[in-house]
Amino acid sequence: MSQPIFIKGVLLNEQTTDILIENNKFVGIGNNLSAPTNAFIIDGSHFAAFPTFANNHTHAAMTLFRGFGDDLPLDIWLNEWIWPKEKNLNPEIIYWGTRLACLEMIKSGTTAFNNMYFFLEDETHAVNDSGIRAMLGCTHFGDADMMADLDAKLPEIPCERISYSIAPHAIYTVSALGLKRCADYCKHHGLKFHIHMSETLKEVEDCIKANGCRPYEYLDRLGILEQMGNDLIGAHSLHLDENEIALIGKYHCSVVHNPNSNLKLASGHEFYALEMKNAGVNVTLGTDGCSSSNNLDMLEATKTMSLLQKGWRKDPTAMPCAEAFQIATVNGFKAMGIDAGRIEVGKLADLMLVDLNNIAFIPNNNTLSNLIFSAHSDAIDTVICNGEVVMEHRHVKDEEEIISNARRVAKILLA
Amino acid sequence: MSQPIFIKGVLLNEQTTDILIENNKFVGIGNNLSAPTNAFIIDGSHFAAFPTFANNHTHAAMTLFRGFGDDLPLDIWLNEWIWPKEKNLNPEIIYWGTRLACLEMIKSGTTAFNNMYFFLEDETHAVNDSGIRAMLGCTHFGDADMMADLDAKLPEIPCERISYSIAPHAIYTVSALGLKRCADYCKHHGLKFHIHMSETLKEVEDCIKANGCRPYEYLDRLGILEQMGNDLIGAHSLHLDENEIALIGKYHCSVVHNPNSNLKLASGHEFYALEMKNAGVNVTLGTDGCSSSNNLDMLEATKTMSLLQKGWRKDPTAMPCAEAFQIATVNGFKAMGIDAGRIEVGKLADLMLVDLNNIAFIPNNNTLSNLIFSAHSDAIDTVICNGEVVMEHRHVKDEEEIISNARRVAKILLA
Repeated sequence: MSQPIFIKGVLLNEQTTDILIENNKFVGIGNNLSAPTNAFIIDGSHFAAFPTFANNHTHAAMTLFRGFGDDLPLDIWLNEWIWPKEKNLNPEIIYWGTRLACLEMIKSGTTAFNNMYFFLEDETHAVNDSGIRAMLGCTHFGDADMMADLDAKLPEIPCERISYSIAPHAIYTVSALGLKRCADYCKHHGLKFHIHMSETLKEVEDCIKANGCRPYEYLDRLGILEQMGNDLIGAHSLHLDENEIALIGKYHCSVVHNPNSNLKLASGHEFYALEMKNAGVNVTLGTDGCSSSNNLDMLEATKTMSLLQKGWRKDPTAMPCAEAFQIATVNGFKAMGIDAGRIEVGKLADLMLVDLNNIAFIPNNNTLSNLIFSAHSDAIDTVICNGEVVMEHRHVKDEEEIISNARRVAKILLA
Repeated sequence: MSQPIFIKGVLLNEQTTDILIENNKFVGIGNNLSAPTNAFIIDGSHFAAFPTFANNHTHAAMTLFRGFGDDLPLDIWLNEWIWPKEKNLNPEIIYWGTRLACLEMIKSGTTAFNNMYFFLEDETHAVNDSGIRAMLGCTHFGDADMMADLDAKLPEIPCERISYSIAPHAIYTVSALGLKRCADYCKHHGLKFHIHMSETLKEVEDCIKANGCRPYEYLDRLGILEQMGNDLIGAHSLHLDENEIALIGKYHCSVVHNPNSNLKLASGHEFYALEMKNAGVNVTLGTDGCSSSNNLDMLEATKTMSLLQKGWRKDPTAMPCAEAFQIATVNGFKAMGIDAGRIEVGKLADLMLVDLNNIAFIPNNNTLSNLIFSAHSDAIDTVICNGEVVMEHRHVKDEEEIISNARRVAKILLA
């Protein structure tokens, strides 16, 4: 049983409110609540409370590649920079790389992430030690041969903050047989299916050449859209036509927009957020890995997403900040099957406190607008995940140790 | 005479270096320099030194409108939200609004800004008290009637950090006579000519209807491009054709890209940075006012600019971070006629120290990439302007007083 947390007089939805957390849930939200005698009390008088972010697509340990190979075409970047160095990966590098990613996410208000990378066991240790949530993808290529004895290979889940997904890399790196094996395994074990979809135009053109249809039509033909339904998470989902949008809406799949990565790799930027939402798709947001987007900051990604929607649609009313924030928070938790993302009684207690004395909130004509359009992550003072404080006054447990080890293993990785 | 500043063992262009500043200039850069006995000594061992930013287009006191009227079409936002409230402007509001803007710019590494707003005398006091540089625009509408007795109206310049420009608002709000009066005055007094140009498609279409030519062709027909040459600063300059690019290149004018404002107001995002550079234009960067872009953060604007260039050109090699940084720094100072923007002996001593222990620099595979693509302004620890420390360990003089007064006058403005 963790200590209750009582936040006194904090700004929530522009009203001053008390918030009480017991165990891992919100149990009281209102005026003049009483603090339990054993509560950890936070004076909320110059803070605003917001739900935390859910980062729905990243490659956590790749944070060690930050700034390595910028401004390059995708194929040169992968073939000549990233893949040769990934041969150096080992459990220790993964552990500290993932700890570094978790540290950066905590410091920017993210308490859950949807991951796709390697060395599941070491990722699991790192997330468990970090105090935040993750859905860790078991990544597959080719025919996904390892599915056969996967039950034996999936590490035991050490805490309620962690879950696993099956993550076939993409339709162009996993065979039809492999994709079906992954989907069957997910269906049988109640797991999510996390895959890169339609990130580049080339990928769509190649699919049409190879299969005579577009990528989501191909998944549908394999029966996977119907089989997975809202357990399918399609990262990027950038180059879609109307039929594909209708299909993924029909099955209520989730998609993950990664605006900074898409811009930086020049994959495209006309993401159909509105059309997908209207079709019934659960639209979520991610940062992608640090090797393509350079940081894991969901607050920054939320602003970029909103501004890009206004920009390419030539419509300043497109995606107001409240809609962008919903995509970055509640929709993201929903995709991962986590009952968080809203500060409401009964929901899992993930919350951030934002410092209203930060320059980005001066003056404070609109708190959410200031958070999304004006602030940076340094305005986030305190982060609570699952009813536990994981950052207080911007200090995170083990921070110095994580930074020093991350620096050390980055040298081994990039040697 | 200000106290010399000696920065010992700081990372500069990926080399550990000493930097000596005397009076307002860099006087020594190299290894094992000696500190003068009276020097203020900064231990640079976990810092990287960079030039500061020059924000080439903003409306400083509008920082008080932050978050007021987001997600609206331009005409509704101006007519129903901003203009009615601007009737409340008074000297006190301008003073504290401008102090707030300067505070925010210092905290995000900007030491010079090119302004266009009202109440020149109060802006001047505010900038003088802030310790940074500004070129303050004397704004004109209509026939610019006040040019006749402007000599008497321009306040005395209190220090070398401040200059004035003449700022006819735009070609659609200032008559041909007014534009010519402004240009003549600039020519006679050696001042810069700062004007909004080609921000929206409508403005270009209206110009073609009214004048039979595009906006920069219209300025050329009035003789103003030739007359002003590199003293002309065209803010936005977004919707241009080849002939216009050739014209402003021929006369070496400066243009100012405002990517966040352009996206948020949906004015357009296909800025011709490369084509203008190749034509001989001095391309610079700005944030625009806080009422349209919500913050004054040039570091954020630099990232957005680079990513947008990659995005709309569908070319991941477009505008690498070094090129973006040059636009945001040295090109900006050049446009304002300030000999800063490079850390070189003889240049004016404007510099920022970036904290390499900030999470954005872990690991540090590429310091400039981490600054532009990964970091936020909280990584900026120390800012020096004109040989004086204006921020040390993120603390700025008068910060609490500025914030408290800005909050107070914002209420009067928005009453």
